[in-house]
Amino acid sequence: MARLDRQIAFLMEIDRLKTVLRRTLITDRSRRENTAEHSWHITLMAMTLHEYTADPKPDLNHTIKLLLVHDIVEIDAGDTFAYDVQGYTDKEAREQEAANRIFGLLPEDQASELMALWREFEEMRTPEAIFAAAIDRLQPMLHNYYTEGFSWKENGIRLSQALKRIDFVDRVSPVLSSFIKDLLQRAQVKGFLEA
Amino acid sequence: MARLDRQIAFLMEIDRLKTVLRRTLITDRSRRENTAEHSWHITLMAMTLHEYTADPKPDLNHTIKLLLVHDIVEIDAGDTFAYDVQGYTDKEAREQEAANRIFGLLPEDQASELMALWREFEEMRTPEAIFAAAIDRLQPMLHNYYTEGFSWKENGIRLSQALKRIDFVDRVSPVLSSFIKDLLQRAQVKGFLEA
Ligand SMILES: [Ca+2]
Repeated sequence: MARLDRQIAFLMEIDRLKTVLRRTLITDRSRRENTAEHSWHITLMAMTLHEYTADPKPDLNHTIKLLLVHDIVEIDAGDTFAYDVQGYTDKEAREQEAANRIFGLLPEDQASELMALWREFEEMRTPEAIFAAAIDRLQPMLHNYYTEGFSWKENGIRLSQALKRIDFVDRVSPVLSSFIKDLLQRAQVKGFLEA
Repeated sequence: MARLDRQIAFLMEIDRLKTVLRRTLITDRSRRENTAEHSWHITLMAMTLHEYTADPKPDLNHTIKLLLVHDIVEIDAGDTFAYDVQGYTDKEAREQEAANRIFGLLPEDQASELMALWREFEEMRTPEAIFAAAIDRLQPMLHNYYTEGFSWKENGIRLSQALKRIDFVDRVSPVLSSFIKDLLQRAQVKGFLEA
């Protein structure tokens, strides 16, 4: 039973992702979003928007797994704000340590499997990882748009910074790339993003 | 662009699942769990515990989709507590109406697809739906166990009631069935569940 005990220990530990807060608000503006619910939301986005991906078509099931797993490291490493240059300098080291500890709670074969999913997402090389990253960036932009630019304004984010975050999206989905660019332009016109 | 607009409207609407509260606490006991983060958590449980399923082996990817989608109806219908006999009398009608409205925000083909996933989960006939239901019941039991029976005590739940909730689990996973029964027995000994 030692194997099952380790799996249950891991599953109870990752409950803590529900207490990791992000910069974005949920759309009713009542509170900040946590990373666990964000992880759920982006899987539905991937399911709904998968039809817009270009060849080589990312596998949807694999994309969903990347999205479900990739943020677990934030339990130890915290959420690094997308535009936090300082935070990004040691993000990799902090997250690698977190991955070692948290995935290490699992039996070795499963630890390796989840570690591989996390690394694949981070490396952004496979069609699935690129699509997952595109969805992961689209979601907070939609939230910002529908909360009048809450975390953009709070951090004085400029249109050019937001556009730079999504410049790779064109590689996996020209349709979604146009959609996001248009959304960001409209956000700037409305004053949610700085010029 | 009307198709994409409908998809985005759906994706923004389901953000509200983050505000639907369940009876269970998150394990640090700071607050009740919401259904969106619960939906994320159970997918990781399915991934981690899939190896314990018996033949006919449920497909993991399909199980994950069932788990991601099945609770969206709670946005309108609310979370019906597992032991709420009264609430269960009109649960089906309330949830069908919710499914019509919320999935109906999507283009028709996708609305049908999500409706089918939701119905499949509810009907509990396929191996995937049975496995998904098993995981969906295991998760709050683990949460209750690790929060000293918080929502069991709050509602005076008896061991026999909890055991009845999981009597079908044996069909999809004898290993998980034994594990849960043992957990519930220990919970009763500790006074988390009534005798
Ligand atoms: Ca449920």
